[in-house]
Amino acid sequence: MIDLRLIGIGTGNPDHLTREADKAMRAADVILLPRKRSDTADLIDLRRMLCAGLDGPRIAEFDLPVRATDAPYPDAVEGWHDAIAGAWRTEIIRHLPAGGTLALLIWGDPSLYDSSLRIAARLKRDGMAMRVGVVPGITSLQALTAAHAIPLNRIASPVAITTGRRLRDHGWPSGFDTIAVMLDKGCAFDAIDPAGVEIWWGAYLGMAQQALAAGPLQETGEEIRDRRAALRAEHGWIMDVYLLRRAMA
Amino acid sequence: MIDLRLIGIGTGNPDHLTREADKAMRAADVILLPRKRSDTADLIDLRRMLCAGLDGPRIAEFDLPVRATDAPYPDAVEGWHDAIAGAWRTEIIRHLPAGGTLALLIWGDPSLYDSSLRIAARLKRDGMAMRVGVVPGITSLQALTAAHAIPLNRIASPVAITTGRRLRDHGWPSGFDTIAVMLDKGCAFDAIDPAGVEIWWGAYLGMAQQALAAGPLQETGEEIRDRRAALRAEHGWIMDVYLLRRAMA
Repeated sequence: MIDLRLIGIGTGNPDHLTREADKAMRAADVILLPRKRSDTADLIDLRRMLCAGLDGPRIAEFDLPVRATDAPYPDAVEGWHDAIAGAWRTEIIRHLPAGGTLALLIWGDPSLYDSSLRIAARLKRDGMAMRVGVVPGITSLQALTAAHAIPLNRIASPVAITTGRRLRDHGWPSGFDTIAVMLDKGCAFDAIDPAGVEIWWGAYLGMAQQALAAGPLQETGEEIRDRRAALRAEHGWIMDVYLLRRAMA
Repeated sequence: MIDLRLIGIGTGNPDHLTREADKAMRAADVILLPRKRSDTADLIDLRRMLCAGLDGPRIAEFDLPVRATDAPYPDAVEGWHDAIAGAWRTEIIRHLPAGGTLALLIWGDPSLYDSSLRIAARLKRDGMAMRVGVVPGITSLQALTAAHAIPLNRIASPVAITTGRRLRDHGWPSGFDTIAVMLDKGCAFDAIDPAGVEIWWGAYLGMAQQALAAGPLQETGEEIRDRRAALRAEHGWIMDVYLLRRAMA
């Protein structure tokens, strides 16, 4: 039996770690660390750093399969998740042939725009004896609102969490005055009418290179586009998230 | 100058505390603990317990003003927030007459359905010299998805976070297959058509008395209504949250 613990570690600040996450890491037999392409070296470095002080678990690094870029979107994701499930299986057989506790450190929270739960479900579906436990972690959205010291919602109002792709394709969701945009490959806020909209933006949230901007979308959108390009060139990668708010129609 | 730190402490499990929250609590000159009506004694007990091990800060308890129940909803909330701001001011003058660092321990995350940022804004607006910092914390929604080991969102899909009142008054928000319902005074899911809808429900999340239920809303809604009433009678209070998911229209 494999006890899989998916542990949310927050967004790049080691102090985002909860006591529960710390205990779960220490209690693991093996912690699996995926190695991605070189441009996200900052991210694996943080996870290595979180593991450096632990003397209980073995740390096992493996190469994360790369997502096909020639297949259409949903197929590419399905195939990629299959490949990651295969990589996990190989590591599990190698490091825990008789079973045990396996931990994965998940950026943010394992429940929000993360695939680990779906990958674990593939292994269970294919017959692996596995229990799955989740340790929640601070998301980039929470790091954003904390850094700006703003509420996510207006009083008693709803909030939409959506993706850059969806904002581009479907526009502003009706019935919401606040939307949080994640997984944006680049400035999807360009696709909406900026009149009366305010933006709170953050990149590299929680990390040393954290960057913030806020203001009316009309002017601040322009500024964010320029800073985003410059930061991406400087660091070789960027992850950002933002909140948009307008008067309720 | 008052340095106000609004510290998210998670949902009742002391292990939800992050390192950042722990450091911010220890660095405070004063931690203000609001005392509410007796039926929420469990909640102040948790905060007292979190403070018990600290030898730096002074712990100052004060009676939280009670919300008027005879005024209409928005007015009652505005008046209540004014009264809480007045209570904070009294405690600040008493405990930090020359300024210093004041911490408040916020259930969940200070950004999500919490009023502390708005109350602090009142004090600043009225002339108090104050810097406000936020430490994010694990929300009940994250404790819910972790306890059920489920993702919040479908792949690349949006999520609506809304309130029980809004679900009753406005129904299922169009364009969303997943909605998270908070601040529900009692089973607002009764107001929607249960066909094809699944529910994941949790009460007292993170606490010893945690209760969970999940399944098709048609049958599970009934079960939740009964358990909720029984739990409320047993403990004298209840806080719950749930996720509803249906096939995308």
